[in-house]
Amino acid sequence: MNPPAPTGPPQPRPGGRTARIRDQVLEAVRAELTEHGYDALTVDTVAARAGVHRTTVYRRWRDVGGLISDVFAAAGDIDWHPRDTGSLHGDLAALNHEIHDSLTEEPSIASALIAVSFRSETAARALQQLWEDRYSQSEIVVERAVRRGELTPDIDARALLIAATAPIYHQLVLLRTPPDPQLSDRAAGAAALAARSGAFTHSASDA
Amino acid sequence: MNPPAPTGPPQPRPGGRTARIRDQVLEAVRAELTEHGYDALTVDTVAARAGVHRTTVYRRWRDVGGLISDVFAAAGDIDWHPRDTGSLHGDLAALNHEIHDSLTEEPSIASALIAVSFRSETAARALQQLWEDRYSQSEIVVERAVRRGELTPDIDARALLIAATAPIYHQLVLLRTPPDPQLSDRAAGAAALAARSGAFTHSASDA
Repeated sequence: MNPPAPTGPPQPRPGGRTARIRDQVLEAVRAELTEHGYDALTVDTVAARAGVHRTTVYRRWRDVGGLISDVFAAAGDIDWHPRDTGSLHGDLAALNHEIHDSLTEEPSIASALIAVSFRSETAARALQQLWEDRYSQSEIVVERAVRRGELTPDIDARALLIAATAPIYHQLVLLRTPPDPQLSDRAAGAAALAARSGAFTHSASDA
Repeated sequence: MNPPAPTGPPQPRPGGRTARIRDQVLEAVRAELTEHGYDALTVDTVAARAGVHRTTVYRRWRDVGGLISDVFAAAGDIDWHPRDTGSLHGDLAALNHEIHDSLTEEPSIASALIAVSFRSETAARALQQLWEDRYSQSEIVVERAVRRGELTPDIDARALLIAATAPIYHQLVLLRTPPDPQLSDRAAGAAALAARSGAFTHSASDA
């Protein structure tokens, strides 16, 4: 689930100078990735852009792989929670809108990180972990729907969440269709409808 | 829709030597891509692997971009039709099984071509066109369901087809989860259920 990367202003964080340098360096990595792509990424360009001495960057992050990993780690550290809109359809639509926005904003750090995951095994593993975290955090959406009586408790939360969100990623990342204002809500509605009809129960999965 | 690339033995084709050289060269491109990736792809390694004089390859395909484009063009030329299983759920599941197999077979040319689309604008455009063709060809699945009375004629065929197939791509290409034997059928069943409940009608999309 998105955003896989922080796109807003950096959170105020404790730690003073060390934390500030990390923020500057990771922001420089994100900017370089969205502007020039993975091929052009070097420790030296990042250090120069961040205004940090290159020795500091080499000592702390070692290489491009270290920098990329830390960008994903920082995204994972964000205290993210899915919105509570009061209905399953509404919650899934809100999730999809977040994903849609993160993939279509300019520049899109989310899109850049997905592209990097096709270049670097380190990035692929980090993105996999970040998505695992986001989908886990999103399961509360399904739990709330069960508590409301919208769904029965034998629902396979992950299968439902993937069905609801997959069309957004598929259209924007793989099919590369233009942003579609109806897509988020339509995919959420279809998944909610299928869920209420029993499509994602564990017994249906085992059948 | 898949397979975006031919994975079986090359079709017998008219044209004699010229066609045979094309088959050999494109097969070499596919083998190089799956074994060594886009970074290692050069006209010279392709020519050597194909057993074709490098001048011939340069003259006909010019560069790596030309080779990649022709791999996609050859995939698009395949006379592909979705299977007719007698039901919407069955047809969508058959589609999904084809996609699942093409993305998980070893080596997977489909996965290699998707990865290349994140490296090369030429490949990205060619893949976009190939997917457009495959989704258009798949609309017959929805037309058959309307003729059978499973769906009403105001169905948005493309939205349904994308919802049915997106989870396969999302899990296998982006989330990189292990192959899941239930995934194809579950995603097909959920989309069919949502479609019958009115989730993909044009009026629902316009709402």
